[in-house]
Amino acid sequence: MAVTVVGSVAIDDIETPFNKTGEVLGGSATYFSLAASFLTDVKIIGVVGSDFGRDYLKIFKDRSIDAKGIKIENGKTFKWKGRYGYDMSDPETIATELGVFSSFKPKIPHNSKTDMLFLANIDPDIQFDALKQMDAPRLTALDTMNFWIKGKKEKLYKVIELTDVFIINESEARLLTGESSIFLCAKTILKSGAKILILKRGAYGATMFAENKFFMVPAYPLENVIDPTGAGDSFAGGFLGYIDNTGDMTFDNLKKALVFGNIMASFAVEGFSVDRFLSVKNGEIKDRFKKFREITYFEELPEGLL
Amino acid sequence: MAVTVVGSVAIDDIETPFNKTGEVLGGSATYFSLAASFLTDVKIIGVVGSDFGRDYLKIFKDRSIDAKGIKIENGKTFKWKGRYGYDMSDPETIATELGVFSSFKPKIPHNSKTDMLFLANIDPDIQFDALKQMDAPRLTALDTMNFWIKGKKEKLYKVIELTDVFIINESEARLLTGESSIFLCAKTILKSGAKILILKRGAYGATMFAENKFFMVPAYPLENVIDPTGAGDSFAGGFLGYIDNTGDMTFDNLKKALVFGNIMASFAVEGFSVDRFLSVKNGEIKDRFKKFREITYFEELPEGLL
Repeated sequence: MAVTVVGSVAIDDIETPFNKTGEVLGGSATYFSLAASFLTDVKIIGVVGSDFGRDYLKIFKDRSIDAKGIKIENGKTFKWKGRYGYDMSDPETIATELGVFSSFKPKIPHNSKTDMLFLANIDPDIQFDALKQMDAPRLTALDTMNFWIKGKKEKLYKVIELTDVFIINESEARLLTGESSIFLCAKTILKSGAKILILKRGAYGATMFAENKFFMVPAYPLENVIDPTGAGDSFAGGFLGYIDNTGDMTFDNLKKALVFGNIMASFAVEGFSVDRFLSVKNGEIKDRFKKFREITYFEELPEGLL
Repeated sequence: MAVTVVGSVAIDDIETPFNKTGEVLGGSATYFSLAASFLTDVKIIGVVGSDFGRDYLKIFKDRSIDAKGIKIENGKTFKWKGRYGYDMSDPETIATELGVFSSFKPKIPHNSKTDMLFLANIDPDIQFDALKQMDAPRLTALDTMNFWIKGKKEKLYKVIELTDVFIINESEARLLTGESSIFLCAKTILKSGAKILILKRGAYGATMFAENKFFMVPAYPLENVIDPTGAGDSFAGGFLGYIDNTGDMTFDNLKKALVFGNIMASFAVEGFSVDRFLSVKNGEIKDRFKKFREITYFEELPEGLL
């Protein structure tokens, strides 16, 4: 079993009110694959320029991630420079240089065509093209952003129709559907074809909708957030990695997968770039899951109370 | 067993982007007592003017709330006029007329001196005075607001030191302590004497801290919020009502009390003024608690996963 991810592998330059990084490894496919790698085999489909460091490739290798699908082209790697305010939420983009990513045309290799597939936040035309190359993916999941919702809504809806799980921010869901209530957002999106909708709420957690089913969790509470970059992709990586590992698509198991995604996102933001994923131990992940269950668990009402 | 509440009984005039009320029953003690009345006996200590409607007093009577402690004085009842924006969160205050509330001096009657006590959001000097009149309250809880944190911080800390449970908004806790992290906020506040701290996060739920213990829940998800006024006081009413009814102060039971508070707040905002409390049935409250447990419950990780 394996998960294939199609998305960006990038060089980030991040500033928070408390620190800055200079150039570091980033990109949606990067965060996704590292988070998923704790539970399953991962293959990345992406593109980088000739400036992409060998030490970055070693990061994937060290976590047994198959990076053969990362094409190295003449030119520059996708660069993103961003700055977080004191709320440590939506960053301001200082600069974006697409480089070789501007002509990214993913080719799904033969051995990936029945994998689970994660389409990270890229042009819906490219997502559509990648999806069409799959034979019989066991599960497909999709992310997007405001830019594509505004510019390519029709194509995006086509991709949603063809994918199983749609993972976006609550505010993006409102923009996409024109509905204020998250329940009406969910109704509209589930009607358009996705079987599962996950709405991310940043530091406030996530909600998951299926037909007639619903689940919500707060975010894992952290004393110190260092760098929120990649939280959403790490969430998706934990979520799909968990499903792929357990092979169980019941809603009860998807709940645990969502919590697992939550936990992987909590590690992602505890360090700059992907640093925390390089040090985190399996035991820490298990402990955090257990702790999260303790701090959100409560018993039933006593009989005869009301 | 009974809970006594000291706070405002007011006449509100509320506007939302979707509707407006004209003059309706409001006030922190009002919402608190109605929410708590589903689980225990409640006594209100407050003051109103001669303009206060008999039909309002009947609302308390119909829910078996002891309103003998509401003094009727010559003058006007406390009036608050507020307007909510599209986010339906912090309202803009259009007008405040304190009326007879400006010289409110609560007298705790003899039969209340061992009750549980809720000190709703009023001047810390008045809260202190009320607290001093108690003999041996089984539990005391406290609310406040930015205005008192800014103007009477020292006296407020004195009241916190003497109460068991402190219930405030997350942003107020930051203002009070000067700490950004909610864990550091909690540490500071618990060190100053409160045994339990509850941080409300509006539509995002609530967190509860005790020494070395922690619990967090999202808000009960609603399709339609009509009027957020009184949500926090209804939360406190549900919380204390539950504890008084069950008589169990273990942290596991406080968790359920917090969820019960959450549920009562969810009803409060489903109608203008206290309307929803006049129609809600015990069965609906139980169903909502059960539903909330379903949508937040998840199982443990499988053995040997990591």
